[in-house]
Amino acid sequence: MQFQYENAYDVKERIRSKRAAILPIGAVEAHGPHLPLGTDNVLAERLAAKLAERTDSYLLPTLPYGQVWSLRSFPGSLSVSNEALVLLLCDIGESLHRQGFRVFAMVNGHLGNGTALKEAARRLAESVPELKVYHFFYPGSKDTIARVRESPPVHGAYFHACEIETSYMLYLAGELVDMDKAICDIPNIGDEADCTPTPWETFTETAVLGDATLATKEKGEAIVEASLAVMAEMVNRAKERASG
Amino acid sequence: MQFQYENAYDVKERIRSKRAAILPIGAVEAHGPHLPLGTDNVLAERLAAKLAERTDSYLLPTLPYGQVWSLRSFPGSLSVSNEALVLLLCDIGESLHRQGFRVFAMVNGHLGNGTALKEAARRLAESVPELKVYHFFYPGSKDTIARVRESPPVHGAYFHACEIETSYMLYLAGELVDMDKAICDIPNIGDEADCTPTPWETFTETAVLGDATLATKEKGEAIVEASLAVMAEMVNRAKERASG
Amino acid sequence: MQFQYENAYDVKERIRSKRAAILPIGAVEAHGPHLPLGTDNVLAERLAAKLAERTDSYLLPTLPYGQVWSLRSFPGSLSVSNEALVLLLCDIGESLHRQGFRVFAMVNGHLGNGTALKEAARRLAESVPELKVYHFFYPGSKDTIARVRESPPVHGAYFHACEIETSYMLYLAGELVDMDKAICDIPNIGDEADCTPTPWETFTETAVLGDATLATKEKGEAIVEASLAVMAEMVNRAKERASG
Amino acid sequence: MQFQYENAYDVKERIRSKRAAILPIGAVEAHGPHLPLGTDNVLAERLAAKLAERTDSYLLPTLPYGQVWSLRSFPGSLSVSNEALVLLLCDIGESLHRQGFRVFAMVNGHLGNGTALKEAARRLAESVPELKVYHFFYPGSKDTIARVRESPPVHGAYFHACEIETSYMLYLAGELVDMDKAICDIPNIGDEADCTPTPWETFTETAVLGDATLATKEKGEAIVEASLAVMAEMVNRAKERASG
Amino acid sequence: MQFQYENAYDVKERIRSKRAAILPIGAVEAHGPHLPLGTDNVLAERLAAKLAERTDSYLLPTLPYGQVWSLRSFPGSLSVSNEALVLLLCDIGESLHRQGFRVFAMVNGHLGNGTALKEAARRLAESVPELKVYHFFYPGSKDTIARVRESPPVHGAYFHACEIETSYMLYLAGELVDMDKAICDIPNIGDEADCTPTPWETFTETAVLGDATLATKEKGEAIVEASLAVMAEMVNRAKERASG
Amino acid sequence: MQFQYENAYDVKERIRSKRAAILPIGAVEAHGPHLPLGTDNVLAERLAAKLAERTDSYLLPTLPYGQVWSLRSFPGSLSVSNEALVLLLCDIGESLHRQGFRVFAMVNGHLGNGTALKEAARRLAESVPELKVYHFFYPGSKDTIARVRESPPVHGAYFHACEIETSYMLYLAGELVDMDKAICDIPNIGDEADCTPTPWETFTETAVLGDATLATKEKGEAIVEASLAVMAEMVNRAKERASG
Repeated sequence: MQFQYENAYDVKERIRSKRAAILPIGAVEAHGPHLPLGTDNVLAERLAAKLAERTDSYLLPTLPYGQVWSLRSFPGSLSVSNEALVLLLCDIGESLHRQGFRVFAMVNGHLGNGTALKEAARRLAESVPELKVYHFFYPGSKDTIARVRESPPVHGAYFHACEIETSYMLYLAGELVDMDKAICDIPNIGDEADCTPTPWETFTETAVLGDATLATKEKGEAIVEASLAVMAEMVNRAKERASG
Repeated sequence: MQFQYENAYDVKERIRSKRAAILPIGAVEAHGPHLPLGTDNVLAERLAAKLAERTDSYLLPTLPYGQVWSLRSFPGSLSVSNEALVLLLCDIGESLHRQGFRVFAMVNGHLGNGTALKEAARRLAESVPELKVYHFFYPGSKDTIARVRESPPVHGAYFHACEIETSYMLYLAGELVDMDKAICDIPNIGDEADCTPTPWETFTETAVLGDATLATKEKGEAIVEASLAVMAEMVNRAKERASG
Repeated sequence: MQFQYENAYDVKERIRSKRAAILPIGAVEAHGPHLPLGTDNVLAERLAAKLAERTDSYLLPTLPYGQVWSLRSFPGSLSVSNEALVLLLCDIGESLHRQGFRVFAMVNGHLGNGTALKEAARRLAESVPELKVYHFFYPGSKDTIARVRESPPVHGAYFHACEIETSYMLYLAGELVDMDKAICDIPNIGDEADCTPTPWETFTETAVLGDATLATKEKGEAIVEASLAVMAEMVNRAKERASG
Repeated sequence: MQFQYENAYDVKERIRSKRAAILPIGAVEAHGPHLPLGTDNVLAERLAAKLAERTDSYLLPTLPYGQVWSLRSFPGSLSVSNEALVLLLCDIGESLHRQGFRVFAMVNGHLGNGTALKEAARRLAESVPELKVYHFFYPGSKDTIARVRESPPVHGAYFHACEIETSYMLYLAGELVDMDKAICDIPNIGDEADCTPTPWETFTETAVLGDATLATKEKGEAIVEASLAVMAEMVNRAKERASG
Repeated sequence: MQFQYENAYDVKERIRSKRAAILPIGAVEAHGPHLPLGTDNVLAERLAAKLAERTDSYLLPTLPYGQVWSLRSFPGSLSVSNEALVLLLCDIGESLHRQGFRVFAMVNGHLGNGTALKEAARRLAESVPELKVYHFFYPGSKDTIARVRESPPVHGAYFHACEIETSYMLYLAGELVDMDKAICDIPNIGDEADCTPTPWETFTETAVLGDATLATKEKGEAIVEASLAVMAEMVNRAKERASG
Repeated sequence: MQFQYENAYDVKERIRSKRAAILPIGAVEAHGPHLPLGTDNVLAERLAAKLAERTDSYLLPTLPYGQVWSLRSFPGSLSVSNEALVLLLCDIGESLHRQGFRVFAMVNGHLGNGTALKEAARRLAESVPELKVYHFFYPGSKDTIARVRESPPVHGAYFHACEIETSYMLYLAGELVDMDKAICDIPNIGDEADCTPTPWETFTETAVLGDATLATKEKGEAIVEASLAVMAEMVNRAKERASG
């Protein structure tokens, strides 16, 4: 299932049968006192592994560097530019296409990568239109999140190291969470943050956007599994179309 | 030791004491019937882990995509451009510098990445001269290789899936080698291959450049450890200068 | 108030007193049967004029070409790349800074420009940190929209030629709306549209996303004025900080 | 006639019949005490409107930012790079082609844009050879200028805010000219200005290159109409060829 | 005098005393039946040598590839892009500055290079403002040309392989001219050639723009020497300012 | 034989018969006290002339600027970027292809150009696959060098202004060598120089890497002729394939 553990003699035929490649992409970024810097990598990798399994697709090695503009001044954050990401992802997509893949699903664990992933997907739609490209950031999770969450969201789009993301980790990588250190920190993010470049140190010292102490494995499981089902359905449908 | 498993609260102080970050970089590339596509990633990662340990440095997550022009038409190979790699590595280097690192060592498992790594190192020497940048591709291994090898090299610069590289894997990741499938395939690579773009399918069908059946864990250990000692000395000296 | 109608002899002193420049940016794009192709330009321009007036700022000439990837195959749409927009906006921002401006507010009438505007604002935050840069796309309008709308939104982020946008036009440029031609067309936009490049012809033939017949000038006025108040407050605060 | 006031339902058929799109492009730039900063925008826009009318073509919205290197330090000037302009104009040209246009005429009001317009036209000649591209900067006006001018030219190529350009404005936009403030300022521009980067503050304080007091509406009309006739003939011929 | 024939031990001191470097730049381009493809290179090189001698400056090796868009389809023409030229010239200029030069004069033998040279000079004016940069294309020759020419010019800006350019060659490199093959070919170049991309095969089969049979060494000498005097004066003045 | 001395009328037919173009490319770079700055240009040019003669190919004018990162701080060195070189070489290659050439051999006199030449050759292999591209840096010389050299090499890859390169000059351009000034300077270049950006002033003051006093014309002849034979054979074979 892990592409890089196959050998070149066996892989040719298997690509032809699997047709789909799943790329986890995350970031190295401050996630408060209770979560590791690599949280987004771990989430993307484990989510992608599940997706690969459910859709009989290949799991590619994780791309562990992401665009972390907002948190780049927090200790431990490493940030790369949209430009570098877009070029790299287009190269990977074109290589996959040349190898015979027809579905390329990027499983993204870090919101900040969204712009680069969308741009890369659009460029690939021009250069290799035969390749169906997905960029997933927990699609189809909205209703479940609304149902299970106990603390209100602190922002319309951001969630970070909070009840929600910590729950994901508890479900997918509980061994990396230190709930004893989990905190509740509810920042006041004004309208202005959406209208002007706003590094997060402007409104938080902890990088925790909400109440991480409310996180549970069960909440994580509910949301992650709901999203997985949505992703799996899309990938499976695309595989069918590619074979049809 | 693994940077991405630290959290943002602890990491600040530790960066200040460790000073050095080690980045493994490899590729996904055909390596014959007995080695996995991710051989260069596995080698870079394990070598880098040893280097981090010996020098009390941070190990960064592996960058698993490389420039695979020569083998890009072999089953399973994925190739990215020099341009994308250079941009990404410069971004990572500048981020490390902003975080307080003063030594950045790239441990490269794939010869084809050499051009991009050298270019990135030179650009970083301009943009963040305070950061000492290394690009390692088994430095200081020449004499030991000459001593232990039983089959002659097939080319002045290339070694691939052969006695030497297979020995590295037997030492660092024996569980991923299937010696029962190892073969001997000695291609005739003419002068022209160094003077004009020459995809490797021109001279090999197997992607094995030599006699992989002669590989042993002992040979791998001898070479890898010799190189590790050389790398560790450079990194340690650079750390001292950075603290001095 | 209109910057381009000033002359070079008078303008120097006035820039020093006004400090802020407002740039309308829109697009030429299909907007159904009842709205003109230039709807986003007209909205941006008139909104920006009001903002300039309320904040005693200069109104710059409208940049009338935008990124219209999603609708580029609809009759009349003209699309430019994010890359071109970002370069142009950075050049304009740096010129404004050299001229003595300290606040640069882009009033955007077209959602598709959002990525480029955000990227330009971030680059300007590096190159001319003294210049406060805003990218406004109807900020602070969410609650009012929720209150006045009679038809449900067809998507979490998109609104287009619908009850809402048509209401904006009725308030700001009623003479350009032909309500006799307004239609109701409620497309079914699946989750997949957010996860893969999806030109809008996939789900709509009209480019109207909802019920344009429900539009009224009053709804438009309520939303636009709410948003104007939010923008004006941000710009005024920034002007004060720049003078302080 | 104004493209952006059409709607998407009607425009498709009309593009097929008109075939030609006229783009005014100018700049925001110091033009002495008697002319507005937007002089080049106003001239381009009104000239383009006349050209569109005479050739039954579509008038596109004005691109109001240009390359103003030479005057960028004068109060009120805004300058964008050749690179940004070229990218934007190529994008617009390719979009026009996709929409069915076969003639794209850029009516330029600002000499400094010439390099970018010529480069864009050449790139479009490669990428969309079916599209005939013109870049007009008062073509065919030389003889008439020589005939009507009373003051000698101060430079072989430049004219600016002088007898000639002020006359254009008196004819095309008299309401924006304040002849009471018109001055005569005859700079001494040496050979060196053509051989080395020479910002205009080197040789003028007013940005008026000659005797603006001699400007008349009649001179402007004579020159502008002569040039219009030349442009109209080219566009009409190109339209015929495109339909033939 | 020829920079590349100096050695590294002597050159340091001499750069400090000479201060100025002269770069010939030409092109490989069709020049009719009587002139060689390298005419522009030969002219630039010999003119530059004279200029270096008169101003006690260093002569750099000739850059023999230029932008030949208009004639690129004629036999023997080789064309490079503006982009490549600009990058290369900026690199050379910055290197010269680092070496201690303070005046950099490009002696251009090919009109088509003008755009790139001007752009490079402007970029260098930003990056190394201490370096005075000239781009010379026969400056100060206008009056002499008007005086000596017997055939009228066929275009306001172009001259090529004609009475004028052939005269330059007769004066500077007579041994490379075959006057027996010289022809008279007067093309009709309409206004349109200045307004739309127009490869020269549109209006000439010979690439001779005028009457080459009227060329004489004396005409060439008169024009070239007039221009040389103008160039020498500018360079000498710049050298004085740099030393002052 | 020299391309630029042909005229456009004769050259068309001759290109069709010769098929191959040889481009010398060198650099301006410090070469110790006994060799000129233009050593690499002179070597490339004379070597290329011999190759053109032996293979009945066209000799192109020399590109005399190269990538001189390592020595750029030595007196007299001029350096251009890989990026500029790659663009220029790709443009030249594509122009040659358009002119009917089918073999393009770059004869390189400067090791530092190797990266750019290899990259350019690969890009041309994509854009004009019909054109066979060579990048030669003394191919096939290894055995002869090993046989004739009296002093040991100071580095695995670099040779510079030493016994070997001085011998090349004595054979190809003896009039430019001042053997009275030749010196022996054996630097200690550690492993680190291959692993981190290392300007040569770190390990040498003279830029002579070895014992130049041992150079002889005979050694130069032996090596150069051996390499010429290898190059000629490759070019001739490629010409045959192109005609076949």
